[in-house]
Amino acid sequence: MPKLTNDWIFTAHCPSLIGTVDVVTRFMADSGNYIDEIHSFDDRVSGQFFIRIEFHPQDETFTETGFNEAFAERAKPFGMTWSLTPPGYRAKVAILVSKFDHCLNDLLYRHRTGQLQIDIPVIISNHPDLKPLAEWHGIPYYHLPITPDTKPQQEAEILKLIDKYNADLVVLARYMQVLSPDMCNALDGKAINIHHSLLPGFKGAKPYHQAWEKGVKMVGATAHYVNNDLDEGPIITQGIQTVDHAHYAEDLVSKGQDIERITLFNAVRYHVEKRVFLNGKRTVVFSN
Amino acid sequence: MPKLTNDWIFTAHCPSLIGTVDVVTRFMADSGNYIDEIHSFDDRVSGQFFIRIEFHPQDETFTETGFNEAFAERAKPFGMTWSLTPPGYRAKVAILVSKFDHCLNDLLYRHRTGQLQIDIPVIISNHPDLKPLAEWHGIPYYHLPITPDTKPQQEAEILKLIDKYNADLVVLARYMQVLSPDMCNALDGKAINIHHSLLPGFKGAKPYHQAWEKGVKMVGATAHYVNNDLDEGPIITQGIQTVDHAHYAEDLVSKGQDIERITLFNAVRYHVEKRVFLNGKRTVVFSN
Amino acid sequence: MPKLTNDWIFTAHCPSLIGTVDVVTRFMADSGNYIDEIHSFDDRVSGQFFIRIEFHPQDETFTETGFNEAFAERAKPFGMTWSLTPPGYRAKVAILVSKFDHCLNDLLYRHRTGQLQIDIPVIISNHPDLKPLAEWHGIPYYHLPITPDTKPQQEAEILKLIDKYNADLVVLARYMQVLSPDMCNALDGKAINIHHSLLPGFKGAKPYHQAWEKGVKMVGATAHYVNNDLDEGPIITQGIQTVDHAHYAEDLVSKGQDIERITLFNAVRYHVEKRVFLNGKRTVVFSN
Amino acid sequence: MPKLTNDWIFTAHCPSLIGTVDVVTRFMADSGNYIDEIHSFDDRVSGQFFIRIEFHPQDETFTETGFNEAFAERAKPFGMTWSLTPPGYRAKVAILVSKFDHCLNDLLYRHRTGQLQIDIPVIISNHPDLKPLAEWHGIPYYHLPITPDTKPQQEAEILKLIDKYNADLVVLARYMQVLSPDMCNALDGKAINIHHSLLPGFKGAKPYHQAWEKGVKMVGATAHYVNNDLDEGPIITQGIQTVDHAHYAEDLVSKGQDIERITLFNAVRYHVEKRVFLNGKRTVVFSN
Repeated sequence: MPKLTNDWIFTAHCPSLIGTVDVVTRFMADSGNYIDEIHSFDDRVSGQFFIRIEFHPQDETFTETGFNEAFAERAKPFGMTWSLTPPGYRAKVAILVSKFDHCLNDLLYRHRTGQLQIDIPVIISNHPDLKPLAEWHGIPYYHLPITPDTKPQQEAEILKLIDKYNADLVVLARYMQVLSPDMCNALDGKAINIHHSLLPGFKGAKPYHQAWEKGVKMVGATAHYVNNDLDEGPIITQGIQTVDHAHYAEDLVSKGQDIERITLFNAVRYHVEKRVFLNGKRTVVFSN
Repeated sequence: MPKLTNDWIFTAHCPSLIGTVDVVTRFMADSGNYIDEIHSFDDRVSGQFFIRIEFHPQDETFTETGFNEAFAERAKPFGMTWSLTPPGYRAKVAILVSKFDHCLNDLLYRHRTGQLQIDIPVIISNHPDLKPLAEWHGIPYYHLPITPDTKPQQEAEILKLIDKYNADLVVLARYMQVLSPDMCNALDGKAINIHHSLLPGFKGAKPYHQAWEKGVKMVGATAHYVNNDLDEGPIITQGIQTVDHAHYAEDLVSKGQDIERITLFNAVRYHVEKRVFLNGKRTVVFSN
Repeated sequence: MPKLTNDWIFTAHCPSLIGTVDVVTRFMADSGNYIDEIHSFDDRVSGQFFIRIEFHPQDETFTETGFNEAFAERAKPFGMTWSLTPPGYRAKVAILVSKFDHCLNDLLYRHRTGQLQIDIPVIISNHPDLKPLAEWHGIPYYHLPITPDTKPQQEAEILKLIDKYNADLVVLARYMQVLSPDMCNALDGKAINIHHSLLPGFKGAKPYHQAWEKGVKMVGATAHYVNNDLDEGPIITQGIQTVDHAHYAEDLVSKGQDIERITLFNAVRYHVEKRVFLNGKRTVVFSN
Repeated sequence: MPKLTNDWIFTAHCPSLIGTVDVVTRFMADSGNYIDEIHSFDDRVSGQFFIRIEFHPQDETFTETGFNEAFAERAKPFGMTWSLTPPGYRAKVAILVSKFDHCLNDLLYRHRTGQLQIDIPVIISNHPDLKPLAEWHGIPYYHLPITPDTKPQQEAEILKLIDKYNADLVVLARYMQVLSPDMCNALDGKAINIHHSLLPGFKGAKPYHQAWEKGVKMVGATAHYVNNDLDEGPIITQGIQTVDHAHYAEDLVSKGQDIERITLFNAVRYHVEKRVFLNGKRTVVFSN
């Protein structure tokens, strides 16, 4: 993504108010920052404003600190929260897995081939199975088994590792564990989960088998932020795959895995390219 | 669809048994019927066999009656049910509507332009609103108001009209009424319904508003046969449409209507082209 | 499209220069215009800047004239060209057709059902065939036959009619005539054409038959502005449809017509919603 | 793909004649082979018949040799050519590459994760660059440099390697060399190539840059069999990706690579699952 590496990305949000766009773009003009692309959206229901700008500085003395100090004053009256992402930025993404490797595989592949500009400092699992895959890519792998009794300690260890490796984002790549409310809170807005989402929605065990019983003609997946409602956090993106009568339940699982990994990849890409904003229980996504 | 008009269509189903294909294709060969296309599927779970063949007779003395009489003997040992559809066949489709016209409009348009090779002998509604549209196309329109008290009589009148006009198929093009169990039974397998099917599934009133609250990134629609479980009959086909944060609840409704009418059209087309088979609570669809 | 009817749309373009965004958004803030959505793009190759804003005035004394007068002064140093579109705006679209009705049908349908917020003041054809369809919709239909000898006069008459009916846009809905260079110049940037565009590209007569010979697995269509290179003007949007071995050449034609009408509809919608900008031989399209 | 591993696949083709289906299905019935799925197609233009059957034997004494010997007699009067593929079959696929690794990477990934049930006995390149990737997967890599003078010898060496490793299929995964007519003949129908196919088609150098100049809104790829017309052999499948004004030429290249690798994967999968038949300059593909 040449643009990502050449441009700075500015993102901001605040309550809706006249002048929110102006305060940003006027500052950009005043400080010699050339705007290549803007997306802004003002949600008339939540009363929240969101903006994403790709720009390149024309002033050689430009620094991130300088930008932030100068802009702070202008942002204040609007209660605006903003963030600046330098060209070449690589988010540090910790990955949690269980035994299924289709999502992990896909993230590692896209990481290796440059489709995802991220670093993966650590992979954590409650099973040892995927250790060889991690080692093959030279990534530390922690096997932290979990039982109902040890769940609090195991989760605490995970959080310590996330901290130790300075992860900016946690990806639950089919981690298959129900996180405790404490864990959910700790990861609120900082973790992306993927789950199946079939038409019509099936809850409980063996969702693809339930879907097959109903004769669905599509299977889908939803990538969303973790919040205290594990499978119902704010949706980032969704994917769908058509199936037909010749697909048995196990084929639906296989098709479902295909769409799960693509959907998770898209969500991670949008996130690290700073295209996603939380908007209450929903998100704003300036996709491309 | 040139093939539809030039070829005969043979469809059949029966319990799985070795020789099911052979008994059909041998008969075709013996009786000089040239096969242009076959699709068959044997469901290893339900133990049912399904086949659809497009063929043209090479024997000038070919008649439908002759075919049926001769084949009956061979089909018997297999308990095979079959049907023969002549080239140029036009199903008689009765349409039930309420006040929304997007699905009706679409069916009329595709009927008029030849995309749907059907006749529409009658349109029935519980409201008078769409009468002008029906008259414009020269199609009889019956306004049968409904109240909780008159529901049995109204449904009986609908069935009488379906009978009077010899409808082969009933399409509920957003009819918006919950059919009584008796009505469902009367229409079992002979009526197609369309309803929204969002990700994740939302039940109850204002489904698109519920979906908007959840920030879905896709809306969908499901076309299915009516059975005694109104919105859960065997699925024929499903459609999906991506949406984003800039779509408010009313935009989701609009996008949803788009995908509803396309999905309903596809289901009707598959049905009248004899591509759909009931398979318990599921369907087999040899789409193209 | 509720947003279209509730918001004003501001579009502008000018050579790339620092401050192009600022001059617009500062003016919006200064004059009390609330911005609901922005898309901007700065083409680093052509050195051109493009912006589209949806906004609603908060000042009760807002008028179009007032806006334009006040903004003119600010726009001048940037050489900025802009346009303001009021809520509820309906472009006047003249349609040119020949004998094929699939594109015309589709535009009339979407016009009638409100999917396209346009007026269609006139339909012009070199054949009488589609007159009944036009009359059915209460739209004046002009039959202007054409021969090699009468071409200049016929084209002059078309231009007169476009002028008489104050058309903002001309749509060549499968008009099937090669326009003269003079006609192309007269319509430059004000007319949208649709043509097939197959993979790989086929020139000359019977393109779908050529495509069938090659066994293509997709057929497509391209909607573009007319310029002096009839089938090669700036592309607005393109559509594609998969096909398979069971589609004979005449089926490709039929599938192609499907994608032609959808693609043309999308192009017209983008145009009348002010989402398209000419950018030399290319376009910028802020689609949604 | 469970079905592939559990079922035998029978494929056959011959000139169109009444009884082509019957001779196959009667034999299946007579010899106790249970048919799970049939696709047949009779091309009324080329006058060729094609059939693909998935079946499982019910007779414990079933052998491939026994099947072939018994069927030979019946096939003879029809001039039918057939092939039998056992459950668990893994095609031996030799891959030719140059310096670009996106297609190779993808094939290796899908091979490793079981999405492609193939063996890759050898990778051959005119450059040394991708050797580490091959070694990483434990696959022999041959670096055979090429100059205009050494082309005949280099191609001869490639053919020897293909022979040595008993490759059933050769995949040109962006090999970037124009094969000699002799080489094309040697690989006729046994090699799959991938190339870009843009809308409209662009020939010559830097096709994506040409496409960008035209402002295309889609880029595509075509996978086809090699014949003596390198980039114009029988098409197996095509893929397409939408792009917009914000994609510069180098972005089109990147998007194009995405669709190239998916399209090539699909073509290889169809081929090794015995879904593709040559039909003169076209193909019949029973996709799923």
